[in-house]
Amino acid sequence: MEKKFKLVIEYDGTAYHGWQRQMADRSIQAEIEQALAVMTRQTITLAASGRTDAGVHALGQAAHFACETAIEPEGFRRGLNSLLPDDIVIKTCERVPDAFHARYDARRKTYRYRLLNRAVPTAVDRRYVWHIRKKLQIEAMRAAARHLVGRHDFKAFEGTGSPRASTVRTLFRVELAVETGGYLIIEIKGDGFLRYMVRNIVGTLVEVGRGKITPEGFKAILESKERKQAGATAPPQGLFLVSVDYED
Amino acid sequence: MEKKFKLVIEYDGTAYHGWQRQMADRSIQAEIEQALAVMTRQTITLAASGRTDAGVHALGQAAHFACETAIEPEGFRRGLNSLLPDDIVIKTCERVPDAFHARYDARRKTYRYRLLNRAVPTAVDRRYVWHIRKKLQIEAMRAAARHLVGRHDFKAFEGTGSPRASTVRTLFRVELAVETGGYLIIEIKGDGFLRYMVRNIVGTLVEVGRGKITPEGFKAILESKERKQAGATAPPQGLFLVSVDYED
Repeated sequence: MEKKFKLVIEYDGTAYHGWQRQMADRSIQAEIEQALAVMTRQTITLAASGRTDAGVHALGQAAHFACETAIEPEGFRRGLNSLLPDDIVIKTCERVPDAFHARYDARRKTYRYRLLNRAVPTAVDRRYVWHIRKKLQIEAMRAAARHLVGRHDFKAFEGTGSPRASTVRTLFRVELAVETGGYLIIEIKGDGFLRYMVRNIVGTLVEVGRGKITPEGFKAILESKERKQAGATAPPQGLFLVSVDYED
Repeated sequence: MEKKFKLVIEYDGTAYHGWQRQMADRSIQAEIEQALAVMTRQTITLAASGRTDAGVHALGQAAHFACETAIEPEGFRRGLNSLLPDDIVIKTCERVPDAFHARYDARRKTYRYRLLNRAVPTAVDRRYVWHIRKKLQIEAMRAAARHLVGRHDFKAFEGTGSPRASTVRTLFRVELAVETGGYLIIEIKGDGFLRYMVRNIVGTLVEVGRGKITPEGFKAILESKERKQAGATAPPQGLFLVSVDYED
């Protein structure tokens, strides 16, 4: 009888072409599936809560797989961690009901985007921030971000070439926190995200911070539902999928 | 007429064989000296506050150089940053008096060692911590660390094969801070450090945390002045040279 397992995964996306298995490029999914194949001698497909794009990191991606096995969840966690490269870490592994699905059952996701807003770049943290030299107007960015909270059609912030049937999503929280050393941390929690949505939102908020778009203009972009109105896509290395929440 | 400049430098030591120029291996010193040569068309020697070993990082290493030039300090800062690889960043550049010497004039140095003390390792932060699975006894480590503060002969914590004329140093502060997520940050401020001294101290404190050495035993090791009494050298990737202080 098949058993179902849920993994919570941390990864450094720097060296990968993203979550999803590709023919030629390295992916997080393929690395973990290969390790599962070694452990179980079976071909196992891993289903994530959603893809992350090339260069994006995760502190708490969720995924499930099913197989016939005598291996316990803690055995999978330790075994996978011993087989995986050190930029992928299985944080937890647990048994879940057969009906569980990492993508369809995901209720909330939290993303974090890290900006470094100061003249001098960082050597040690360079893989995990977007460095912006010119001083951003944080209060204008906060005023703009408030327009995002709630249920909206986020079509203006959807990546081109990846249309979804519905582009309506609900954001519960959008917070901008200033931290020591010039860091600006943007945290967004929602019931779902379109492709490139967080990076397009951040790219457009940065235009607000630069004074090129007003907070009202930002609201108008959201309401326009036109991608070409929004700012450029923020680079991937500042983005972290922090956590995926499921109903208990 | 020669002018003298002081640099404050951040670097990620992961890819380097340490600060000091080597025949074959990459070093921080050689990278910056090469960039200075490009800017000035002169052969320039950079003198640091002290070496850092292979794999050790710096948030605020200090170094000086002298040359005949019309380039202003801010011109050096920007020019060097545009020439250097992105794991080395010049944070500041300033003119200093001819008598200034980055090594001989250094009055205090602060080092930070980052431990991650939890069952699960980290993917994103793996280059910048020493991961220790088994729960450490922090209070015992603190009790041991208190014996380090003050003026002592630190011969027991000196790396073998690199003897100094005097092994007496003064530590002003040794602090262990527990941070969220299982991080234990050890910060040490002193008037000077022997080779491997911080990593040997940390390695021995971890033995105290593991219950293998008592705080009193730690004191006895310090007083023994024998390297073979102390614990193993902690790995380099957890260590950061935070800052170097000079008289104003």
